[in-house]
This record gives sequence, structure tokens and C-alpha cells, in this order.
Amino acid sequence: MYTLNQRLAAEFIGTFWLVLGGCGSAVLAAAFPELGIGFAGVALAFGLTVLTMAFAIGHISGCHLNPAVSFGLVVGGRFPAKDLVPYVAAQVLGGILGATVLYFIATGKPGFVAGGFASNGYDLLSPGHYAITAVFLCEVVMTFMFLFIILGATDARSPAGFAPIAIGLGLTLIHLISIPVSNTSVNPARSLAAALFADTAALSQVWLFWVAPLIGAAIAGVVYKMVGGDGKQK
Amino acid sequence: MYTLNQRLAAEFIGTFWLVLGGCGSAVLAAAFPELGIGFAGVALAFGLTVLTMAFAIGHISGCHLNPAVSFGLVVGGRFPAKDLVPYVAAQVLGGILGATVLYFIATGKPGFVAGGFASNGYDLLSPGHYAITAVFLCEVVMTFMFLFIILGATDARSPAGFAPIAIGLGLTLIHLISIPVSNTSVNPARSLAAALFADTAALSQVWLFWVAPLIGAAIAGVVYKMVGGDGKQK
Amino acid sequence: MYTLNQRLAAEFIGTFWLVLGGCGSAVLAAAFPELGIGFAGVALAFGLTVLTMAFAIGHISGCHLNPAVSFGLVVGGRFPAKDLVPYVAAQVLGGILGATVLYFIATGKPGFVAGGFASNGYDLLSPGHYAITAVFLCEVVMTFMFLFIILGATDARSPAGFAPIAIGLGLTLIHLISIPVSNTSVNPARSLAAALFADTAALSQVWLFWVAPLIGAAIAGVVYKMVGGDGKQK
Amino acid sequence: MYTLNQRLAAEFIGTFWLVLGGCGSAVLAAAFPELGIGFAGVALAFGLTVLTMAFAIGHISGCHLNPAVSFGLVVGGRFPAKDLVPYVAAQVLGGILGATVLYFIATGKPGFVAGGFASNGYDLLSPGHYAITAVFLCEVVMTFMFLFIILGATDARSPAGFAPIAIGLGLTLIHLISIPVSNTSVNPARSLAAALFADTAALSQVWLFWVAPLIGAAIAGVVYKMVGGDGKQK
Repeated sequence: MYTLNQRLAAEFIGTFWLVLGGCGSAVLAAAFPELGIGFAGVALAFGLTVLTMAFAIGHISGCHLNPAVSFGLVVGGRFPAKDLVPYVAAQVLGGILGATVLYFIATGKPGFVAGGFASNGYDLLSPGHYAITAVFLCEVVMTFMFLFIILGATDARSPAGFAPIAIGLGLTLIHLISIPVSNTSVNPARSLAAALFADTAALSQVWLFWVAPLIGAAIAGVVYKMVGGDGKQK
Repeated sequence: MYTLNQRLAAEFIGTFWLVLGGCGSAVLAAAFPELGIGFAGVALAFGLTVLTMAFAIGHISGCHLNPAVSFGLVVGGRFPAKDLVPYVAAQVLGGILGATVLYFIATGKPGFVAGGFASNGYDLLSPGHYAITAVFLCEVVMTFMFLFIILGATDARSPAGFAPIAIGLGLTLIHLISIPVSNTSVNPARSLAAALFADTAALSQVWLFWVAPLIGAAIAGVVYKMVGGDGKQK
Repeated sequence: MYTLNQRLAAEFIGTFWLVLGGCGSAVLAAAFPELGIGFAGVALAFGLTVLTMAFAIGHISGCHLNPAVSFGLVVGGRFPAKDLVPYVAAQVLGGILGATVLYFIATGKPGFVAGGFASNGYDLLSPGHYAITAVFLCEVVMTFMFLFIILGATDARSPAGFAPIAIGLGLTLIHLISIPVSNTSVNPARSLAAALFADTAALSQVWLFWVAPLIGAAIAGVVYKMVGGDGKQK
Repeated sequence: MYTLNQRLAAEFIGTFWLVLGGCGSAVLAAAFPELGIGFAGVALAFGLTVLTMAFAIGHISGCHLNPAVSFGLVVGGRFPAKDLVPYVAAQVLGGILGATVLYFIATGKPGFVAGGFASNGYDLLSPGHYAITAVFLCEVVMTFMFLFIILGATDARSPAGFAPIAIGLGLTLIHLISIPVSNTSVNPARSLAAALFADTAALSQVWLFWVAPLIGAAIAGVVYKMVGGDGKQK
């Protein structure tokens, strides 16, 4: 129904929104004196980028916005492998544009310093200085659960229309748990985009936020098929 | 099914609620000592004014509550241009009544001073003192995304009935990101209404909160047609 | 389909939950040191009592849980006047039981003092010491909007099944705005129940929280019919 | 449609998520300096574990994730008694794995001490030092209402598809009220799992969080049948 270009444009805009909205709430609003939104507000913002886009572009591209999601859906048998590379490319480029616009807005504040710029990290670059092993495990498990929720909520036997709520609020939940640990990635495109603008060594740690989410997503693709079947209508 | 007068009355009441509820939460509750709701509570309140009204009057008027929304829907081919001026008039008047009622309630507190009265602004009138260029860009992009969400979520191929949730929580998300930048407008009627009661120079800056949202909305109307089609059932 | 006794039992349990949950979150959790939920958490709690009950007992009794709601629905032509008195009685009794259970739990904390016990008030009994005129206007307008949302969201032309979300989150929104003003009533049964256990003069002010909500509800019943019709399927 | 093993695997993963996500948000994020999510964030997290899983595995196992829920559904005539023991076993094991993974992640933070590890308790092990009688009553009433919501929202006459929202946000509401009292259980599997890792006497108090929830759940099973019928389609 839609051309590949339309679908890639949707993924590009959606991932632009995920990074601008999620990282934007963290950079601009989380620590505002007295009235700031804190980790809970950032968690809500990340989730709502996905919830809003899933209702807006779900019918166009499926609204992955995340290389780990596209990959997990390939493993789970829900997405054709041949579309994986163009989807990931659109997501990475969209995320980078989101971070670029955010950077321009953020520098409009007198005295702004980029700092971590909402990037992900371990050890000294983890918000709570969590060790690399804990961060790695956390990202694997959180991405596993994210994909498990996605595969289950979009299963043909689940109630139709509700998946954007389950998936968006699932991402909010993941942030409520794991921002202190890794600043929460579960999304390689988001991690790369933020790291490019961070005034820290975040870029040198970004490999973990590609490897761990992809592992977690692949496991979910396998496990969901064992527990819930292929999710296609009989 | 409904007369134009009924539709305008619905827009009037709805925009009354958007300003009373959104600006009201900011003026009355955001900075209450110790227990105040902060920016996150205000973000939730603005979004819920739209969510509640979209369920209550969506079937009557479409529940725009915002000149930029009506304009973006005209550009996107979803709303007849001939109804634009009366809709905007009803929205502006409803918003002003909302701010008036809020002002009356607020002055019931001993020692109340209007201050910014939840108005929008740049430079010294921005909550974080953001420069005019950053504020302008932010309002264009946020309104673009707001209309993109609206056009997508109300597309005939999106799940029926869920659009009020996507759009309302989309407005919450926009506030979670951008209150520190511009106090978040994306709505010229809301900006004008609050500025009329502000004890600052907010009225002299209100032009930006008409121009930028209308530009963002128009771009969304064009872009969504390219990415998602006209959204009408085939 | 259900007997009157079943419907009254549902209203009794539902209003029990509204007072226990809403006032309970305020008395037990709002001001807990460092981690307390604040006004925003209380606003969410009140709304979720209605959201959860509307899904649980909406098919049994309509889930009013509030004399002003029952009255406004009579004026709006949606509820038979002959059932008004038994419904209100069940709501008042359920609310009082909710406050009683809350009182027993609350006194389990060493050093507990009842204080306002989440009751409503004006002047010195208003959280922000708002004057009686502001409180009266606020309660009229908030209840008007609450009933307007209820009448619109349960209109036969609104999307089926979503009304509990619109109405519950509408009550959350009303609290986000008006807790500082009146501690938010819009519900005479809730006001009476809390005032009975308050260690203040709240009971002497409870009349306002019957009169103002009933006025606001009646206006909404009239206005919605003008704007939206009778809401019955043609 | 699904084998018993598939259903038990779903319950295992779901309860794993409930404990990892709910207790995880409490242990990792609640008290993070300045930006922590507080009790309100933990309440949201617990509710969202259930909301997300109910959409993801509701069609597989019914998504109980809680021995009290399974027991209450047996009493209410909605779940076969012969499946109770295997369900409870899967829930307990899944919960323990969730706490184990959480413990491993949490110890990745320099200087981590387990403390209460989000366990439930009374007297000195209650967050607000509530007495055992208050805690017992609170857990009975909260579990009663939780099951009443579940039985009502999954009734064949309630709107289809919305039950995960009602039930998940119902659990959020229960936490908004009662975290200060008992740290909120209403779930014996969650209480046991957390107590196993607590560096306090929590394990010696865990009996209460089996007895009280099971009593509350059983009462709800009886009461809902009186008020709402058996909930099966006629």
C-alpha cells in the first residue's frame, strides 16, 4: 500500500521524534530548578514518542524507530530481512537529525554545556556509575522484554488497536527502571545520535548499546515463538 | 449532523477548557510549596484538556481547540477552508474566557501576583531565557510534530477511536520537552489568552506564537500528504 | 439486567473506592518525606479510582460514584429521576465507609494526627487559603466541565468503550488544577465523608461542596443538550 | 489453543517482569538524588508491568502474575482449580528470577547495600512504621479491590480489549495509596521474591503477605458474583 520510500520517510520522522522528544526532555527539562520533570518525566517522554508515532505511522511503516526492534521482528518472523538495512539506515539518520535539532535548541540557553547530552554509558558515564557487566545485562534484559511486549501486543490474537499503548508505556516502564543504570538505551540509533553530541567519551562506549540490545532482541524473537507461536492469524 | 453554531460552541467550550486547565494548572498548582505538580504535572494537564475534550466533542466539531490545528488540517486537506475563520474566532474567544475565569480564581488567593500568568515568551520571558531563534525553531518543530501526529492518528487507516489518546498525550509530550524553552505554545489562541493577563511584556512577543505554530502546521500538512497520503478511506 | 440492589451495591463499592483511594493517597502518601507523591500523585489516584471502577462496574450501575454526576445525568436526560435518591444514598454511605477504613489504616502509624484528613474547604481550610468566592466559582466550573466530559464521552456518537478513560483522566485533570484552591471536591459524597473525620471545622463548610457541584452539574446537563443533542442513538 | 507449558512459561516471564520492573524501579530509581522517581514513579512502574504483560500474554495465560489473582479467579468461577498450583509455582519461580536479576544489576553500583530491597513489611519494616493490624487490613482491602476490578473489567459485558488498562492502572492506584503502609504487596509471589534478597527480617513477615492478599481475593470472588453475576456471556 505504501512505497518503500514512504515507509523509510516515516521511520526517519519517527526516530527523529524519539530522539528529539526523549533526549530533549532529558537535556532541556529533567533538571530544571525546582520544577524539573526528573527521571519519571523523561521516562514518560520516551514512551510517548513511541505511543504517538505508533498511532501516527504504524499503518505506514510499522513504527519500529529502533534497529533492535527491526532486528527482533526479523528473528521473530514478523518483518522481512531484506528491509532491515534500509530501515536501520533511516532510523540512524532520523535520530541524528533529532539530536542535531535538539543541540541547536539547547544552545539557545545562555551558558549551556552539552555534558553527556542524554547519552548512554557505563562506569563513570552511567548516571549511577554502574559497572559494565551490570549495564550489559540490564540492556540485554530490558531489550528482551521490550521486544517480548512488542511481539505479544501485536500478535493477531491480542486486542486490535491497543499495541501502541502497550509498547509506548512499555518503553516508559523500561526507563523508570533503568535510567540510573545506563541512562536507558534499548535502541542503538538513539544511543549513537546522542553520543555524537556528548562532550564526554560516550562515543567510545556506544558499541555496547548496539551489541546488548541486538542480543536481547534476538532472544525475544526466539522465545516468543516458543511461548506464543508465530502470532499470525490462522 | 451538527449546525455550525453547535460546532463553534463546542470549539469555544473546548478552548476555554484548554486554557483554564492547562494554564490553570501552571498558575495555581505548579509551584505550590513542597507538593506542587511541577512542569510534568502541567504537561499532563495540557494534554488531558485535549484528551478529554476530544472524546467529549470530537464528534461535534472535530475538537481542534487551536488555530494552528485548524490551519494545518486545511493544508492537509482534512478541513474546509471556509470554516477556518469562524473556528479560529471561537477558539480565541473561548481561550480568553478561560484565562478570565482563571484570573478570577487566582486572585482569590491572598497576595496573588499575576507575573507571567503562564504566558509564552523568548529571551527574558522564556522560563530558561532561551534566545528567540531557539524558541522560534522549537515552536515550528513542535507544532509540526503535533500536526503530524494529528494527521496520522486520525487517518482512516489508523485504529478507530484512539486518536484522542494519541493527540492528547502528544501534547503532554510536547510540554515535557519544551516548557523550559518557550513555556510551550504550539497554540496561538492559548498564547494570546495568557498574554492578555500577564503582568509582563508577553503581549509584545505573542506574534511569534502565531507565526511559528502556523508555519509548523502548514509544513506538516504538506509532509503528511507525501508520506501518508490523504488519509481518506479508499 | 441488574436489580436495583445490585446497582446500588456497585455504587456503594465504587464510592467506597473513590474516597479510600483518592483521600487515602492524599492522607497516606502525598507528603511522605522525600518520596511522597505530591498533588500530582493524588490527582492521578482520584482519577484512577473512577477509571478502574468505570471499567469494573460501568455495565452494572453506570458508575456515577458522585451525587453531582447522578444529578447532572438526570438534568441531561440520561438517568431516571426516580433512581436519584437511592443512588445518592448508596454513594454517601459508601464514601463514609471508605473514609472509615482509611481512618483505621491511618491511625496505624505512630503519631498520626487527622488534621484536615483530605477534606475540602475555603479560606483558612483551603490549601492555598483561597477565598470563598474563588472556591465557589472553581467548584461550579470544574463540576460543569466534569459533567460536560461525561455527557460527551458517553454520547452514542463517541467512540465506544473509551469513556472510562476520558472521565477518569478528566477527574485527574480537575485535581491537577484545583487541589490548591479547594482541595478539589466536585463530589458532595467525597466532601462529606472526609469532613466527618477531619480534625478541623471542615464539616461547617461542607454545604458549599454540595451546592456548587450540583449547580455546575445542572448547567452542564442543560448546555450539553444545546451543543451536542440528547446523545441517544437515532 | 496453548499448551499448559506455554501458559506456565508466559506466567513465569510475566511475573519475572513484575518483580524486576516493579521492585527494580524502587531499588534502582526511586531515591536517586534530585531526579529520582519517588513513590509515584514506582506506582506507575508496577502498574505498567501488568498493563504491558496483559496485552502481551493475556491471550496466552490470562496474565495473572500473582497467586492471589489466580486464587480469586478460582473463587469467582473464572479459572479452573486444577491449574492453580502450577500457575502459582510458575509465578513464584518467575518472581524469584526477577529478583535475582535485579540483585545482580543493583550490585553493579559501587557501594550498593541491599537494605529492604523493596520487600514488604509491618511495624519497623513498614515504610511509615505502620502497625501490623493496619497493614493486614490494608492488604486485605487493597487485594479485594484489585480482584474486584479484575473480575469487573474482564466481565463479558465490559468493553472488550480495555481490561489491561483498567487492571494495570488499578495496580498503580493501589501503590499510590499504600506504599507508605506496607510497601504494597497484594501479591504473595512478589513479596516472597523481594524478601529473599532483603538484608532485613522481611522473610519472617512474608506470611502476612500471603494470608492477607488471599483473604481479600477470596472475598472479592464471592462479592463480585453477588453484585455482577458470573460474568459469562449469556
